[in-house]
Amino acid sequence: MLKDAMRCWARSKARCMMMAYSIGIVDTTFARVDMAKPAMEVITRSVPKVRIIRYTVPGIKDIPVAAKKVLDEADTAITLGWVGASPVDKYSYLAMSIGLVLVQVLTGKHVIDVTVHEDEAGSEEELYRIAVERAKKHALNLVTLLTKGGEGLTPYAGSGLRQGVPDVGSIRG
Amino acid sequence: MLKDAMRCWARSKARCMMMAYSIGIVDTTFARVDMAKPAMEVITRSVPKVRIIRYTVPGIKDIPVAAKKVLDEADTAITLGWVGASPVDKYSYLAMSIGLVLVQVLTGKHVIDVTVHEDEAGSEEELYRIAVERAKKHALNLVTLLTKGGEGLTPYAGSGLRQGVPDVGSIRG
Amino acid sequence: MLKDAMRCWARSKARCMMMAYSIGIVDTTFARVDMAKPAMEVITRSVPKVRIIRYTVPGIKDIPVAAKKVLDEADTAITLGWVGASPVDKYSYLAMSIGLVLVQVLTGKHVIDVTVHEDEAGSEEELYRIAVERAKKHALNLVTLLTKGGEGLTPYAGSGLRQGVPDVGSIRG
Amino acid sequence: MLKDAMRCWARSKARCMMMAYSIGIVDTTFARVDMAKPAMEVITRSVPKVRIIRYTVPGIKDIPVAAKKVLDEADTAITLGWVGASPVDKYSYLAMSIGLVLVQVLTGKHVIDVTVHEDEAGSEEELYRIAVERAKKHALNLVTLLTKGGEGLTPYAGSGLRQGVPDVGSIRG
Amino acid sequence: MLKDAMRCWARSKARCMMMAYSIGIVDTTFARVDMAKPAMEVITRSVPKVRIIRYTVPGIKDIPVAAKKVLDEADTAITLGWVGASPVDKYSYLAMSIGLVLVQVLTGKHVIDVTVHEDEAGSEEELYRIAVERAKKHALNLVTLLTKGGEGLTPYAGSGLRQGVPDVGSIRG
Repeated sequence: MLKDAMRCWARSKARCMMMAYSIGIVDTTFARVDMAKPAMEVITRSVPKVRIIRYTVPGIKDIPVAAKKVLDEADTAITLGWVGASPVDKYSYLAMSIGLVLVQVLTGKHVIDVTVHEDEAGSEEELYRIAVERAKKHALNLVTLLTKGGEGLTPYAGSGLRQGVPDVGSIRG
Repeated sequence: MLKDAMRCWARSKARCMMMAYSIGIVDTTFARVDMAKPAMEVITRSVPKVRIIRYTVPGIKDIPVAAKKVLDEADTAITLGWVGASPVDKYSYLAMSIGLVLVQVLTGKHVIDVTVHEDEAGSEEELYRIAVERAKKHALNLVTLLTKGGEGLTPYAGSGLRQGVPDVGSIRG
Repeated sequence: MLKDAMRCWARSKARCMMMAYSIGIVDTTFARVDMAKPAMEVITRSVPKVRIIRYTVPGIKDIPVAAKKVLDEADTAITLGWVGASPVDKYSYLAMSIGLVLVQVLTGKHVIDVTVHEDEAGSEEELYRIAVERAKKHALNLVTLLTKGGEGLTPYAGSGLRQGVPDVGSIRG
Repeated sequence: MLKDAMRCWARSKARCMMMAYSIGIVDTTFARVDMAKPAMEVITRSVPKVRIIRYTVPGIKDIPVAAKKVLDEADTAITLGWVGASPVDKYSYLAMSIGLVLVQVLTGKHVIDVTVHEDEAGSEEELYRIAVERAKKHALNLVTLLTKGGEGLTPYAGSGLRQGVPDVGSIRG
Repeated sequence: MLKDAMRCWARSKARCMMMAYSIGIVDTTFARVDMAKPAMEVITRSVPKVRIIRYTVPGIKDIPVAAKKVLDEADTAITLGWVGASPVDKYSYLAMSIGLVLVQVLTGKHVIDVTVHEDEAGSEEELYRIAVERAKKHALNLVTLLTKGGEGLTPYAGSGLRQGVPDVGSIRG
């Protein structure tokens, strides 16, 4: 990405101004909350001239190939999954997770996975709040990794950050 | 696919009219409902001149390689699996799911997986209805992804769609 | 395989008569029933001049690489596994299943997996009967896929076939 | 291996006498029994001039890459793992098992996996006996596969052999 | 690594003095203890002129690709994960573990994985102590493997070493 930008600059300053980060957003019709909206708000506010590539699939098992497809063009991606409450749904979550790890290892790009589990909250209100907050917080994580690299989050290493629920903080000896 | 179509057009307009989308359908002899029939009805009604490639295997663990084989020619595929009620059957489901994710990531093509679990309904009537409806709804998902691309389903993102059971709808804040 | 046969025919009719399908059979010393015998009986009766490639390994986790090895020469393979009753045995079953899916996807060839679970029957007599019948039925499935291709089993799609236990039949609406 | 040996022979009979099978042994510091010792005793007694390549890692999740590394030179390998009693330990066992299947499929070489589970015996005496016997029996399996090929164990197919516990024998109809 | 060092030496002894081992450290903002600090203390004390490459990600499922990225430059890596107490957290642990095995097999380099499970101790004090000790002990394991190779830990094979909890020792017959 950086190399592309530099090469671009060397050729034509004007055309190069058009270049920017490109971020994929993969979501599902199965999800019960539109998590792409808050994620995009965070991303467009934080990354000027960012190019968003949307991809919507039916459910979580369709996410890995969609992530792979958006990463053909995007520098990184965020995936917004929703997982049912049954044991079989959890197996689907596992298959998706293994698939996303595979996609990341093969492409060498981060895919930040936001998943909300139908059974992690007692009410729809709480599920909604978790989904929106988790999407926002992880969108910010994605932006940090993309724009600041692998040490961008290092100041927060080991500090017990959470997404969608309150941070739990560090334990000190 | 698109490139093939254009090349074809350049050579011979007449022969090219024959070209169209090609969709694989993989099903099993283990399944207790013929899900290929409703899936094909939806597909042929929605995609003119579509070429259907059938592949039938014994059970779900045979599905991933069959999907891989039909994708040698097909643009996308739908798989119609049936999963028993025992814990071992669920492990087979997991292995199949990981395999299908792998096939999709390696080919860069979608495989929409329709699975019915023997234990998800209380009666054979209900299982039948779930199987047929799920096959139809996912066939439509497949068609949308194939003909409209990754943003074809975006209007329904986060809207709690289900297949085989009633949609649950969005949660709003 | 077919292409090989045709090329052979073009060169020398006589030498070509020697050519035939080649099928791998992978079994284990852990299994308590010799499932290779009934499988081979079905195969040799159904496929004239078939070449059988035997490979015996200690247990199920050794099966995937053995399947890979026989597929270097064979057109397809059948694997005959036996799984213990403990939770750890089931994890081994899962690892083997994922491995076999991988082998199939990488080679583009079917590996029909016959597994008998120590805990799926109440008596040794029943386990024996299941093992022999399952091996026979799946050997026939293998032969059909090999000689008739992906639509060979299509007449039985969705018809609730089982192996080792009675068929359960279709559910109709 | 065989091809190497023949090529060697053609060049220099004397130098070639030095060539022999090469077997990797991977074990862990987590294990509570030195299983490499009995395994090596069996191997060196059964395979003249064998070259042993040792590799010791902290725990079972480090085994797959170590197996991959020794197989860069070795013809085959035996891995000697020890698994704790908790559910998380079993997940680590599963990850290791999938990894070893992957290594074998990628290299086309057998890796015989000996694992002892902390919770499979009631006393340390019994665990010790299981570990030593399992390592010996599987070392012999490895030697048979290496020196006699895929049909070396075929006379024992389906005969209910066990390692570390008494053989259970065949079930006959 | 060694080859690089030799090549370097041949060109310029002075510049080459700068070369040394390079070790990646991957940690998370989810973790509640800064495990990188004790790990780095052990590493810098044990490996003169070592180059540390830091990479911090949100949670454990982001670790495999980060490990892959640091291994583009590093000779080996240590990953410092923190796993929640719920069943879904354990599936994430499994996906991460399979991913790390994959990364290691593909790169041929060790990634020593330090994971602390939120539910493995009764108090925060104990969790802290486990985290710090486990990070230190495994950092030492990493250093030994890197500087002494596959036989560096062989003197401790089968001796029941633990990290974060007391060693349990060997069982002798």
